[in-house]
Amino acid sequence: MIQPGDLVLFYHNERMAYVIAVPEKGKFSTHRGEIDYTEVLGKNYGDTVKTHLGVDFHLLKPTWSDLTMRVRRTTTIIYPKDAGYLLLRTVIFPGARVIEVGTGSGAFTILLANFVQPTGKVYSYESRSDFSENAQHNLRRVGLDTYVEFICRDVEKEGFMHDQVDAVFLDVPEPWAMVGHAHTALRGGYPLVSISPTVEQIQKTRSVLELEGFTRIEVVEILERELLVRLGRTRPKERMVSHTAYLVSAHKINRDSLTTDEHR
Amino acid sequence: MIQPGDLVLFYHNERMAYVIAVPEKGKFSTHRGEIDYTEVLGKNYGDTVKTHLGVDFHLLKPTWSDLTMRVRRTTTIIYPKDAGYLLLRTVIFPGARVIEVGTGSGAFTILLANFVQPTGKVYSYESRSDFSENAQHNLRRVGLDTYVEFICRDVEKEGFMHDQVDAVFLDVPEPWAMVGHAHTALRGGYPLVSISPTVEQIQKTRSVLELEGFTRIEVVEILERELLVRLGRTRPKERMVSHTAYLVSAHKINRDSLTTDEHR
Amino acid sequence: MIQPGDLVLFYHNERMAYVIAVPEKGKFSTHRGEIDYTEVLGKNYGDTVKTHLGVDFHLLKPTWSDLTMRVRRTTTIIYPKDAGYLLLRTVIFPGARVIEVGTGSGAFTILLANFVQPTGKVYSYESRSDFSENAQHNLRRVGLDTYVEFICRDVEKEGFMHDQVDAVFLDVPEPWAMVGHAHTALRGGYPLVSISPTVEQIQKTRSVLELEGFTRIEVVEILERELLVRLGRTRPKERMVSHTAYLVSAHKINRDSLTTDEHR
Amino acid sequence: MIQPGDLVLFYHNERMAYVIAVPEKGKFSTHRGEIDYTEVLGKNYGDTVKTHLGVDFHLLKPTWSDLTMRVRRTTTIIYPKDAGYLLLRTVIFPGARVIEVGTGSGAFTILLANFVQPTGKVYSYESRSDFSENAQHNLRRVGLDTYVEFICRDVEKEGFMHDQVDAVFLDVPEPWAMVGHAHTALRGGYPLVSISPTVEQIQKTRSVLELEGFTRIEVVEILERELLVRLGRTRPKERMVSHTAYLVSAHKINRDSLTTDEHR
Repeated sequence: MIQPGDLVLFYHNERMAYVIAVPEKGKFSTHRGEIDYTEVLGKNYGDTVKTHLGVDFHLLKPTWSDLTMRVRRTTTIIYPKDAGYLLLRTVIFPGARVIEVGTGSGAFTILLANFVQPTGKVYSYESRSDFSENAQHNLRRVGLDTYVEFICRDVEKEGFMHDQVDAVFLDVPEPWAMVGHAHTALRGGYPLVSISPTVEQIQKTRSVLELEGFTRIEVVEILERELLVRLGRTRPKERMVSHTAYLVSAHKINRDSLTTDEHR
Repeated sequence: MIQPGDLVLFYHNERMAYVIAVPEKGKFSTHRGEIDYTEVLGKNYGDTVKTHLGVDFHLLKPTWSDLTMRVRRTTTIIYPKDAGYLLLRTVIFPGARVIEVGTGSGAFTILLANFVQPTGKVYSYESRSDFSENAQHNLRRVGLDTYVEFICRDVEKEGFMHDQVDAVFLDVPEPWAMVGHAHTALRGGYPLVSISPTVEQIQKTRSVLELEGFTRIEVVEILERELLVRLGRTRPKERMVSHTAYLVSAHKINRDSLTTDEHR
Repeated sequence: MIQPGDLVLFYHNERMAYVIAVPEKGKFSTHRGEIDYTEVLGKNYGDTVKTHLGVDFHLLKPTWSDLTMRVRRTTTIIYPKDAGYLLLRTVIFPGARVIEVGTGSGAFTILLANFVQPTGKVYSYESRSDFSENAQHNLRRVGLDTYVEFICRDVEKEGFMHDQVDAVFLDVPEPWAMVGHAHTALRGGYPLVSISPTVEQIQKTRSVLELEGFTRIEVVEILERELLVRLGRTRPKERMVSHTAYLVSAHKINRDSLTTDEHR
Repeated sequence: MIQPGDLVLFYHNERMAYVIAVPEKGKFSTHRGEIDYTEVLGKNYGDTVKTHLGVDFHLLKPTWSDLTMRVRRTTTIIYPKDAGYLLLRTVIFPGARVIEVGTGSGAFTILLANFVQPTGKVYSYESRSDFSENAQHNLRRVGLDTYVEFICRDVEKEGFMHDQVDAVFLDVPEPWAMVGHAHTALRGGYPLVSISPTVEQIQKTRSVLELEGFTRIEVVEILERELLVRLGRTRPKERMVSHTAYLVSAHKINRDSLTTDEHR
């Protein structure tokens, strides 16, 4: 049975879909009518309730895609199509210790926290305290804040406080400025991934990655295209998101090892 | 230090990249020369070794992308671009109990096992015992077999042995034939995802999902496009994979709840 | 010098761009101010004029892309990305005789008329007389109506009035119903092209093409993606048209020739 | 009836498709058998002939797509998907006078020649005489060489010999070096289009276009994706061309007009 505080996706259709931490009282209210939360608390996930105007809402379990796309946003967020790809370019696992800069709205932090719990940790750096506070709110809401250490710090100047981490995730305007620090913080051979919207950012990041001792530097973009499957009228949706960001991945090489090799 | 049995990505470039469980003795051998494994065992991840012909190989930590793409294959496998998206359309977490049909080569099973460990379980169904055995080999190799229960069974006829699962993943030629069983096995409101290469499969799956009590049925395709970032010559790679499969996702609705609603 | 009746693209930016047949008097009027047409008539293509509010409009020569996208529409039209591809899948040339069904808003008819002039002819069939009349208006406006014979006719029942044509273009909801007639009308070995938005239309069209004596049946889709090239911030535009239609092309084979071959 | 010298597409399937100017004698020869050309001369377009091994070849009319893709190549060529789009971004018509640099293998020149005939002219500039000679061969083969003036010249240094042209097409490694000359050669308000494979080329071209007096500068890429439509197994083809080139278009503005405006 749905308990107070449980996250529920109130779903009528894609335009009317809301993730709610169900409160003990009050009303869920849309232009298609209202539902009393006390009625929802008596239901199970998968049940269907009606507004007082007779409109159906299904009580669904929110997916990771929902929980990240529907955070309270102070920044642009990483889309699921990109987030899923980035995660698989790393070695993340329950127990991993990973660094993220910047925290932003915490959408991607939610995923990291989920996939390192219960024994791992996300070190999430953010230079702006207002962003960090909003992100902490978003993490608490999904119950994953205990797996995240939020650090408000100017990484470019001060570097990271952690090392031997299993992955570094960069989502900042100038990722190249942190690549050197990321090299210091990472375990040898482990991956860094970075996300940036423009070609120029990617060009600079790539150059610095090479200089700072990374290999296997790859850049991709991920496109998501919806197919409308309807009897006798199947076709792709007419419009799509053409671009969110370029995704960079690379692995740290130990510089001393290279030097030794070269001097042989 | 790299230990015997550790998985290492021997990386020269993308065409010469091999995931190896390093043995205690013997030689790593390519057309660009050989490396004695005993030399590798004295190194760390991130170090670089040379073949006797002087060609560099970096000893990198394999990512999830590597570990799934480079399994011993008896079937087509789910690509990382698709796998990442599918995972985020579910509620998978350390501790989750999920069903997968079919096991295939176990590439996707590896991801599921990693993301449900240490307390969750993957129930992986496969009708062909030879596939299942190969997949078990692949899971053992990455040390994740203890989180998977391999079941050799004709699901279409016999259904699932587990219920109240957090997600069902279908990768079979006739997913529609298992949708009813999946509805029974799933927790109310929780997601099913399915992957199929052809439009006709998607059309049938969608129809049956609707009939059997699923909502929020969505179909997408994910495209991955590589960008070659080279000083003064940045451009997308000339060729790409245009199609792997369509990805379907849906949520279970509790049928009794619907009926009750309709009879009010 | 710009003459009365000349088509001019009044261009401020892509959102404020208007194709106008310049009248002898009156005012061009936008929310950014007005321009007296008498002032435009004293100018040349390529000149810049200002509204009374000081906003620049360049007087540009409209391209085929403009002339087709900015017709008076009663129907959906064929986009330039698709139209260009379709034309090159045929043998169109000045002097060609081609059939088009249906006329629609005449956007594609404009292109056909231009590329068969001065000695060729477009036979443009349309079952709805209101569509045909609007299309004739659109063709007259660009001065290409003399190269088109507009025919209002139910092609499915009555067939075509012309034969030995160099190409057949189908843009109708049920192209398969006209494939047999198209075979009769076409010169042997010459191409038919057809455009349809849904997969099911393409499936039926393909089946009938094969049955009716066509070969080299190919289906493609064309995607157009804009790149925003701005100093230091180059990236693809955020949104794009994901789908307009599937494009089918095929060549007629002479059935008697085939039969003869088979009986040898 | 097919005459000696006629261009015929000998078509078995897409991998076995050959454009041949049918000679008076000799044999068409493939690994699937031979066909005597004298037998072909007795046939019509659309007929089917068999090799001595019994394999069918259809005698099809080559399309513009075939005639450009199957030229004798000394350079990369412009693909039909791109060529069609470029043409529609101009005002080309029978009678137009247009400039092209460089001629390359003449694939795009064939299209221009066809669409300006019988009274127009293509001025095709190429700095390398060997390329120009091969292109002339390719144009003669399709019977369109009389509509082209081939000019071997270093345009960057010497500029164009023609002016008041209806369009300028640039397909050179350094298009920005010709933008000034193109501005001089073009009619006011008329379009220039340019094609380049890399982002950096586009960035430089765009900057210079803006400086030299062009407006409405747009950059797109065109993607072509094949759909395999087969009963019960419809799906996109597995691989595709991901990138050929970026396409730039712009319109000339008259500089004196601008100055006048600014001084008002």
